[in-house]
Amino acid sequence: MYQELFSQMKKQLGQLDKWLDTAESYAKTKNFDAAVLLGSRLAPDQFACSRQVQIACDTAKLGISRITGKEAPSHPDTETTVAELRARVASVIAYLDSFKASDFEGAATRVVTQPRWEGKTMTGHDYFIEHVVPNFFFHATHVYAILRHNGVALGKGDYLGTLSKK
Amino acid sequence: MYQELFSQMKKQLGQLDKWLDTAESYAKTKNFDAAVLLGSRLAPDQFACSRQVQIACDTAKLGISRITGKEAPSHPDTETTVAELRARVASVIAYLDSFKASDFEGAATRVVTQPRWEGKTMTGHDYFIEHVVPNFFFHATHVYAILRHNGVALGKGDYLGTLSKK
Repeated sequence: MYQELFSQMKKQLGQLDKWLDTAESYAKTKNFDAAVLLGSRLAPDQFACSRQVQIACDTAKLGISRITGKEAPSHPDTETTVAELRARVASVIAYLDSFKASDFEGAATRVVTQPRWEGKTMTGHDYFIEHVVPNFFFHATHVYAILRHNGVALGKGDYLGTLSKK
Repeated sequence: MYQELFSQMKKQLGQLDKWLDTAESYAKTKNFDAAVLLGSRLAPDQFACSRQVQIACDTAKLGISRITGKEAPSHPDTETTVAELRARVASVIAYLDSFKASDFEGAATRVVTQPRWEGKTMTGHDYFIEHVVPNFFFHATHVYAILRHNGVALGKGDYLGTLSKK
């Protein structure tokens, strides 16, 4: 189910891309710089919108890279405009798209670590369930929440996207 | 992986319970009614904190009920205090805890529907991936974000809880 949940994250990044587009249109209509929205945050000691976008991207990108053992593209966190953030989102969507089912063989038991864990490790499976999934949706939802809080016209359908209903 | 992701939601509801406890202590320290926090929202046309708690609970409860075909306990949405919301969270945690691996047999292909879909259906699998998972974390994160926005001292560790690092 790793691949399908990363597919869902890919879909969610596609929705996030639309939120950024809506945010930019809103800024144009109201005649203010969209960078104001990107610099907005819900609490003074929380990350601003642009950083939430970057971390949502990184959580998916590094998550899939770590559990499959494949190298991830580098993104130096230099985005300052909506267009640059959308390019980053597109780049991560393309990266997620490059994986096939066989890439996830052995993912469950792969030893995963990251610098801030100071030498400790998790299995790929535990890391995916306990860290990647909750963290990805945390940051994606914060992007949505910051924009909604600032008046961007988004609704639940914009968050979930189209469901496979029949 | 259904069971493990519902376990993660159970863990997340346990964290949410702690956020509510922290929120109540904060209100006491600052000498205001915690109901103010429960009635807070990030946008005038978004749900308030208490409703976000209720929907996070319902998304997990109805999600597991629908994909397993087992009846869910009823919660009439009458909570007005932190204590009542925490009791609801505890009740949903206990319900999630009552499932065993064999309950998920056939979940992937079970036909799932809900009143607002007007007769349309999804497979249990699609419903779980496209609706339950993103929706659960959306509402849980909104509870967190509303409290953080109002000054409750929460951090990322309070969101994720303890990781299985070794």
